[in-house]
Amino acid sequence: MAVFLLRGSKRGWAADKLRAAEVVPFASAGQIAGKVPMETLFERFICNFIRRGSLEIDMPSGRRISAGDGAGPPLAIALRDGTALSRLLRNPELAFGELHMEGALIVTRGSLFDVIVLALHNLGQKGEARWMVFLRKLRTRLRRLDQRNNLLRARQNVSHHYDLDARLYSLFLDEDRQYSCAYFEHPEWDLETAQRAKQRHIAAKLLVGEGARVLDIGCGFGGMALYLARVCGAQATGITLSQEQFAMASARASASGLDRPPEFRLQDYRETGDRFARIVSVGMFEHVGLAHYGEFFSRLHAMLEDDGIALLHTIGRTDPPCATNPFITKYIFPGGYVPALSEIMPAIEGSGLIVTDIEILRLHYAHTLRHWRLRFMAHHDEIAALYDERFCRMWEFYLAASEATFCLGQNVVFQIQLARSVDAVPMTRDYIAREERRLREAEEAAFTSLCP
Amino acid sequence: MAVFLLRGSKRGWAADKLRAAEVVPFASAGQIAGKVPMETLFERFICNFIRRGSLEIDMPSGRRISAGDGAGPPLAIALRDGTALSRLLRNPELAFGELHMEGALIVTRGSLFDVIVLALHNLGQKGEARWMVFLRKLRTRLRRLDQRNNLLRARQNVSHHYDLDARLYSLFLDEDRQYSCAYFEHPEWDLETAQRAKQRHIAAKLLVGEGARVLDIGCGFGGMALYLARVCGAQATGITLSQEQFAMASARASASGLDRPPEFRLQDYRETGDRFARIVSVGMFEHVGLAHYGEFFSRLHAMLEDDGIALLHTIGRTDPPCATNPFITKYIFPGGYVPALSEIMPAIEGSGLIVTDIEILRLHYAHTLRHWRLRFMAHHDEIAALYDERFCRMWEFYLAASEATFCLGQNVVFQIQLARSVDAVPMTRDYIAREERRLREAEEAAFTSLCP
Repeated sequence: MAVFLLRGSKRGWAADKLRAAEVVPFASAGQIAGKVPMETLFERFICNFIRRGSLEIDMPSGRRISAGDGAGPPLAIALRDGTALSRLLRNPELAFGELHMEGALIVTRGSLFDVIVLALHNLGQKGEARWMVFLRKLRTRLRRLDQRNNLLRARQNVSHHYDLDARLYSLFLDEDRQYSCAYFEHPEWDLETAQRAKQRHIAAKLLVGEGARVLDIGCGFGGMALYLARVCGAQATGITLSQEQFAMASARASASGLDRPPEFRLQDYRETGDRFARIVSVGMFEHVGLAHYGEFFSRLHAMLEDDGIALLHTIGRTDPPCATNPFITKYIFPGGYVPALSEIMPAIEGSGLIVTDIEILRLHYAHTLRHWRLRFMAHHDEIAALYDERFCRMWEFYLAASEATFCLGQNVVFQIQLARSVDAVPMTRDYIAREERRLREAEEAAFTSLCP
Repeated sequence: MAVFLLRGSKRGWAADKLRAAEVVPFASAGQIAGKVPMETLFERFICNFIRRGSLEIDMPSGRRISAGDGAGPPLAIALRDGTALSRLLRNPELAFGELHMEGALIVTRGSLFDVIVLALHNLGQKGEARWMVFLRKLRTRLRRLDQRNNLLRARQNVSHHYDLDARLYSLFLDEDRQYSCAYFEHPEWDLETAQRAKQRHIAAKLLVGEGARVLDIGCGFGGMALYLARVCGAQATGITLSQEQFAMASARASASGLDRPPEFRLQDYRETGDRFARIVSVGMFEHVGLAHYGEFFSRLHAMLEDDGIALLHTIGRTDPPCATNPFITKYIFPGGYVPALSEIMPAIEGSGLIVTDIEILRLHYAHTLRHWRLRFMAHHDEIAALYDERFCRMWEFYLAASEATFCLGQNVVFQIQLARSVDAVPMTRDYIAREERRLREAEEAAFTSLCP
């Protein structure tokens, strides 16, 4: 590949003045190495990038370099692959995760989580190489292309993640297998308590009456629909595109002993024709895809009864729209996307639905993910036996990186309550706490009757 | 003006097949009258427009026509000016208000409010004349031009409305002169109680501690800043661009008997240099102007301390962005605009602020406006003596039309809570009710000490 010469009279650039670090992505490692050693290029890049905090790097050659201003905890990584430097220079946001996954990037001081926090702190800051900025802007421009989630691709994307061995999920999720952000009224709560509180909080916002027809879009392993059926007496329907989730949710419904157990279907939200008094969707909207938001909310509007209430629970970003991290879309959630409210709102406004409340859950997912990560790591050997070491390191990176984005407030969870009519929901929000108290009592009756 | 011939092979239009109603806006009344009588054109227009509900119209000629499907309450208006028909045909959204203001459109059965609700129900529906749709789209496209609210224009716009005779506001507002949406925990509450509850609700969301430096942007007659100083012990600063409001707020501060009375300034938000622990803005954002949203939130970010909390209380629309009604911008709020969340969010995301909560107050403003309108009408003679009959009818239209948009859920109030850091606000929203209880007790002590 030829060296790409940046030219631009406006900023007075000239070929001989180019900072090599900004050219490298378009040059082959060999070509550049002849002029400037790769290690020197990498050192310039990393010292420009890491300006806040402190990071030591053991290079593949054995040399040690330092980056940052010395503030914060001392962190260190070792790079153990000759190609690591050029891969990090070319596409740092992808290569960081990949090298960790392959065991070619080892955290030798501090934790992987700390190193990711350090990187996120410096991302988008002044010193960032123009190439990184350009690459992110390009990805952001083209982000819709990755999210053309038609019926077929939606199924494939869901299958990639959710049809993993069901035993995996049992090793790090709570007993009810809630694979979404819990609700920590108190940070010291255990995961089981916080996941139950999440279900209660959502049910309270939906004001679910006895016998109400409720649809759960993206029902996961069925926990939410089972809660609504058992505690609220709802006539619940759950839809999912995952075979594994469908099988387990159906088995749980059969074993529930409920007079009116939830009905689970292997179905896309675009294939559901009925109307419902209540619709809930928890942690599924991240898979809808930007190009389908209009379609999603139009379907919600069409499926919701005139005095109905819907609740959408989705991860969202607080910064302006940006492409998802390329490691996450490549290895974890193909077709996935974390939207900003500015991307969700136009679709809602155009659908005929009225937004009646938006709660922004900050830090709750950081706590949830920490619980998951610690459980995951505690079961490392069993998971490595199910898959392999590479899989464990891939997931460790995914869980740690996700936790870091919530810790820093870059990601949050939006709970968006929607209605078709302006008076479907009470005028003030006091009813939520009242409903939660009522449901807590109902839970006691509903769940103790299960354990004779 | 020459008749504008709509041509378009795609839809098979031809000059001789044109529906006259769609041509008239470009034709002079006289020219058309030679071919199709104005009354016939108007009848076609109104019968196409009013498809839901029922309206009888007494034409200037004495003839009576009927529109609608006969559903709903029977309503009737009389048009008493020869130019009324052509003005309604040309620019119905402006002419409706103007004709009412001039006494040339009289509601003879039902109320003005009912007729406005009927019109809003039919606006944007299928039968609407293409001209109306085109005009609204054009206005929406060009809406930024009306909102170039630089320092000078912002002052002029504010003065147009808020520097009206101070006696006017005393005749229809509550005792505390709160000129923004009240908070009706119970719809049967009186206005005074609901306005006090609004102040309490906002103060609770701000978690204002004793001695906290609080800025109120667009402080009106000073009620909110006085509440924060008196009940929370805050060190409050209020800024306004209205001479009348500044004078009255300052006088109230002097007479307050507080050790640390609020400081009021005649100042634009762009001219305030200090930093504050808390920032509140109630009913002022509607005057900022779409082109200045980025500037507004950047200023908010700059003025807010690192662990600070801000609360923005603004009217918003639930439908996609649309130009403000031309009667309102011409006669009531020049430079004013009711934003959709999709227009506010990009500016917040770009500012570095984090949205921590969005409450959507539905119907509260409908109740507030009904109180104001009934008080206004009860003081009709005094207000007519202050101004004139035309002013009374202009304001009656403004208050009734505003109430109608909230009744139908087209307009709502957004209470957007903002912070710079992800942990500035407690993790769950329970603190709001707790703070309200605490403040209610503090109010009793603070206000009873005023009445010996």
